[in-house]
Amino acid sequence: MKIVIINSGSSSIKYQLIDMPSGEGICSGMIDRIGLETSNLTYVTDHVKLEEILPIPTHKIGLEKIAKLLMDEAVGVIKSTSEIEAVGHRVVHGGSTFSNTVIINKEVKEKIKQLFDLAPLHNPANLEGINVAEEIFENAQQVAVFDTAFHQTIPVVAHKYALPNYLLTEKKIRVYGFHGTSHKYVSEKALAHLENNSKIITIHLGNGCSMTAIKDGKSIDHSLGFAPSNGLIMGTRSGDIDQSIVFYMVNTLGYTLDSVNSLLLKESGMLGLTGFSDLRDIEANAELGNVDCQLALAMNAYRIKKYIGSYAAVLNGLDAIVFTAGIGENSSYIRKLVCTDMDYFGIKLDESKNEIRSREAREINTADSKTKILVIPTNEEIEIANQVYELLY
Amino acid sequence: MKIVIINSGSSSIKYQLIDMPSGEGICSGMIDRIGLETSNLTYVTDHVKLEEILPIPTHKIGLEKIAKLLMDEAVGVIKSTSEIEAVGHRVVHGGSTFSNTVIINKEVKEKIKQLFDLAPLHNPANLEGINVAEEIFENAQQVAVFDTAFHQTIPVVAHKYALPNYLLTEKKIRVYGFHGTSHKYVSEKALAHLENNSKIITIHLGNGCSMTAIKDGKSIDHSLGFAPSNGLIMGTRSGDIDQSIVFYMVNTLGYTLDSVNSLLLKESGMLGLTGFSDLRDIEANAELGNVDCQLALAMNAYRIKKYIGSYAAVLNGLDAIVFTAGIGENSSYIRKLVCTDMDYFGIKLDESKNEIRSREAREINTADSKTKILVIPTNEEIEIANQVYELLY
Repeated sequence: MKIVIINSGSSSIKYQLIDMPSGEGICSGMIDRIGLETSNLTYVTDHVKLEEILPIPTHKIGLEKIAKLLMDEAVGVIKSTSEIEAVGHRVVHGGSTFSNTVIINKEVKEKIKQLFDLAPLHNPANLEGINVAEEIFENAQQVAVFDTAFHQTIPVVAHKYALPNYLLTEKKIRVYGFHGTSHKYVSEKALAHLENNSKIITIHLGNGCSMTAIKDGKSIDHSLGFAPSNGLIMGTRSGDIDQSIVFYMVNTLGYTLDSVNSLLLKESGMLGLTGFSDLRDIEANAELGNVDCQLALAMNAYRIKKYIGSYAAVLNGLDAIVFTAGIGENSSYIRKLVCTDMDYFGIKLDESKNEIRSREAREINTADSKTKILVIPTNEEIEIANQVYELLY
Repeated sequence: MKIVIINSGSSSIKYQLIDMPSGEGICSGMIDRIGLETSNLTYVTDHVKLEEILPIPTHKIGLEKIAKLLMDEAVGVIKSTSEIEAVGHRVVHGGSTFSNTVIINKEVKEKIKQLFDLAPLHNPANLEGINVAEEIFENAQQVAVFDTAFHQTIPVVAHKYALPNYLLTEKKIRVYGFHGTSHKYVSEKALAHLENNSKIITIHLGNGCSMTAIKDGKSIDHSLGFAPSNGLIMGTRSGDIDQSIVFYMVNTLGYTLDSVNSLLLKESGMLGLTGFSDLRDIEANAELGNVDCQLALAMNAYRIKKYIGSYAAVLNGLDAIVFTAGIGENSSYIRKLVCTDMDYFGIKLDESKNEIRSREAREINTADSKTKILVIPTNEEIEIANQVYELLY
């Protein structure tokens, strides 16, 4: 069966057509800058690579354009939209409502809408993608896969904040956790590799960064909380800070609250510390002796180490740590910093294995390392396709 | 020599008269609710215990009242204020300026004033106490002991936030750390007890709560950051939260920024979770089956465990954990929760030793516990007196 995966953002649509259960990718691409005169559309199959700049005013027109390409005589891969049996939608926030992948109906859409407040940048775009896909792929089952779902197993002792109780019960303020599809995917690969070992920490280092403590396959704690802003140091996001800084910046330094929010999300993290937002630039400059870059990388790794220790406490043990996503898969520099002076946790890096570049899952610890160090490439689209397939068949 | 220790708050003065180098307490007490008609004054020596309710409009009048009592024919302990050779002042915020105890002069007072913005509730009251003590104990050396000083050894990798650099260099936003006098005092006692072991974590659980990672006697990381608001769950303070909650409460739930600040500092923590602010009430109710109280205690201990793991990573090892301050010294309940399921860190509690009530420093781990578990009563006044004495003699 053919499944379309849609990841709809506020002004973009990422898509993939996947054959299941083989997991073979048939076609993929994205539309960027929806609403502008210069929207950018890409369409990639085994045979063609198309890139076009054209005005795409709405998500609907964008998705219609994609459907047309899929069925095009010259570059298409299907004959009719009715060949698509299912559409899997990435939905960022499932709140406390969704702990599993679900078939979308009117009620589900209503609930996604009720969660707009918790993810104002993401959920409205996700729902728009669903509405449009229902029109275009009218024979397909529409399925929602939630980023937060994997973390619904986090127990109350870890997901509740030390705030007045009504903020949890009435206002739903709690740790939700994010990047769940990625943490789930790589943790399953890791557990299959490890056989009997069950206490692992997954470290997702991409644009956003997060870590999950996983026991017996279940998320039991996670570094991103109510929104994807805290925890690890990210590209432009500060991660953990003392919240009193927000009040000080407004009350004493004279910032507006909105400008503090924007500063913490868009001007902080590695960008704020170095002036660079791409980690490759930061590593290159650190190697040339730039002290800001050296310090930023050291701080980044230091934060990850602290979370490893913290989650080892939560797990009361540690069988493996797993690096994934763009930086986790590719930066031997960060991995080395994280794994240095961590022998108390049985973490011993094999430096030459660490330097090997590969797209395969691999072990990079020494033979005598008590704790395994794994690098496992993530694949959120395949994970979504798998979940859709499992739900429907 | 006789040293007066003064801990001056916004509407209170705590004081102690200590003979040095013997460390013997001669007299102690406090004045509460300065500025009201019903100020409360206590004065305690070996022979008398005085408590009086009277209007004390200012710190100056309060301190004059204390001086008078000290020299009183019936209950006094000195003949003249000139017998006092030194006054040691607790000053909460020393910023990046003070990493040591200093003799107070005009320049020091000016610098304490410059730090008002960083500790608006504490530093102005501390300076007021200094000014008044200079008038009353005019022959005494005035000495300032800073709560933040012990943490000035925290390296940049741990004291810098992932914010734009100018917020550190120009605006001095960084981890300062607090309760330094207590962490220093108990860590020195612990290190003397442990002989060669040097990687310890001190856990100060009182009204405020904080933890310090200590390597070779030096603070290298600490749970309170820019202000004493984050980290562990406290009596009425939330400790760590995702900062995005602040923006959500203002922008979506309609709180004012000030009311959020006040809620996080005064209505959260154990009070927000249980309705009780005294830990003894919470423990008693937990034992009677109150699930809010049970959960709050579990959350409190869970947070402490996570910091133990995190600091074990920073230290790359762990020789001992040290409980201190009101709750740390007296709550066997919390200590047990913290030490349960922590054998990965070599932490094994001797449950019967844990239950013994004592004012003495003691070990409460089992004989085969790799990591020592210590309870060491803190004594900030003696620590201040020691520092004053060492500086002057």
